[in-house]
Amino acid sequence: MIIEKKEFSKYPKHFKANFINSLSGFKSLNLIGSINTKKQENLAIINSVVHLGADPALIGFISRPDSVRKDTLENIREIKDFTINNINEKMIRRAHQTSARYEKDESEFDYCDINKEYLNGFSAPFVQESQLKIAVRYLTEKRIEINNTILVIAEIVFIDLAKDCVLDDGVIAIEELGSLCGSSLNGYHRTELIERLSYAKVGAPPKKI
Amino acid sequence: MIIEKKEFSKYPKHFKANFINSLSGFKSLNLIGSINTKKQENLAIINSVVHLGADPALIGFISRPDSVRKDTLENIREIKDFTINNINEKMIRRAHQTSARYEKDESEFDYCDINKEYLNGFSAPFVQESQLKIAVRYLTEKRIEINNTILVIAEIVFIDLAKDCVLDDGVIAIEELGSLCGSSLNGYHRTELIERLSYAKVGAPPKKI
Repeated sequence: MIIEKKEFSKYPKHFKANFINSLSGFKSLNLIGSINTKKQENLAIINSVVHLGADPALIGFISRPDSVRKDTLENIREIKDFTINNINEKMIRRAHQTSARYEKDESEFDYCDINKEYLNGFSAPFVQESQLKIAVRYLTEKRIEINNTILVIAEIVFIDLAKDCVLDDGVIAIEELGSLCGSSLNGYHRTELIERLSYAKVGAPPKKI
Repeated sequence: MIIEKKEFSKYPKHFKANFINSLSGFKSLNLIGSINTKKQENLAIINSVVHLGADPALIGFISRPDSVRKDTLENIREIKDFTINNINEKMIRRAHQTSARYEKDESEFDYCDINKEYLNGFSAPFVQESQLKIAVRYLTEKRIEINNTILVIAEIVFIDLAKDCVLDDGVIAIEELGSLCGSSLNGYHRTELIERLSYAKVGAPPKKI
């Protein structure tokens, strides 16, 4: 079933947003914790966190003017430090609720019943309930002029794992931590590991590890 | 369990790559099909495809010099048209094998036993086995100077769905199509829908839809 641009470009706004958002496949689900100089905290759900490099350890996310609260982006530019907190099954509805349009002086931690915590002297708040918390520091950003989307680029400062599930090869078994994945703008999915495969080499099929 | 930068930055190379790659959460799993002016086809697995916008319909992926075959990036810059093909359970090992370092004149379609097809007059090859195929056109790229990573930005031209599973609100039920998600550099996971939630509004809890 082929759907062409001339067709989907005419879809109604929200229908189109859901449709096009589905195409990239499953997404990471995280909450971004931030704070400004007035100690106003913010929390925003984001499904576009992406790995950018291991050495130096970099991580990024896509911020769109109409989807991510500007408060978050302003806080990050101001304070530099922010947090990325993986979402698990116990907090789906509360995490989803952070996408409602609260006022600037309303903290989603309070309004969405999510517990905050400060760790290791880091200036931005973490989500206490999260099983995988990352302290990150804003480095730079890249603007995609076509639609004013911004790729925020940050350095990883430290990680807090709820339990030690680092495998022999360095992989963190996030399925054991209860991380979820998302689809489009409203789907929450648990996962089941099928297999992990060995590093691919020419002339030899990959092996289950 | 807190792991600080001074600790993880000393991890051995492959261990560190697996570790840091785990942090962003679950990833989309796609195969990128491309071709050059000499009709040499290439296919590369990629776990960093990300939604960039619905109107205009944009999609991107992160290309790293040491992880993605340069052939793919060169082809995309040359021909502009390329394809993004969602990975399903039947093709996990063959898709993984495309990450082996084949020579420039060796097509992964042949060496990894993946069937190609050409659709709708589009110049780049699709993966026949894929249940969600996207024809895209390269628009521009953004270089992240810190590690020479590139965000490739492309426009969606048309979509081919194996079956009609577009929900009333525009969401494509990719879980019904058999799409998978990935973790770190070697994990393949099936998913199970927990719930879809209504658009979040201040003062009202989200509802299951």
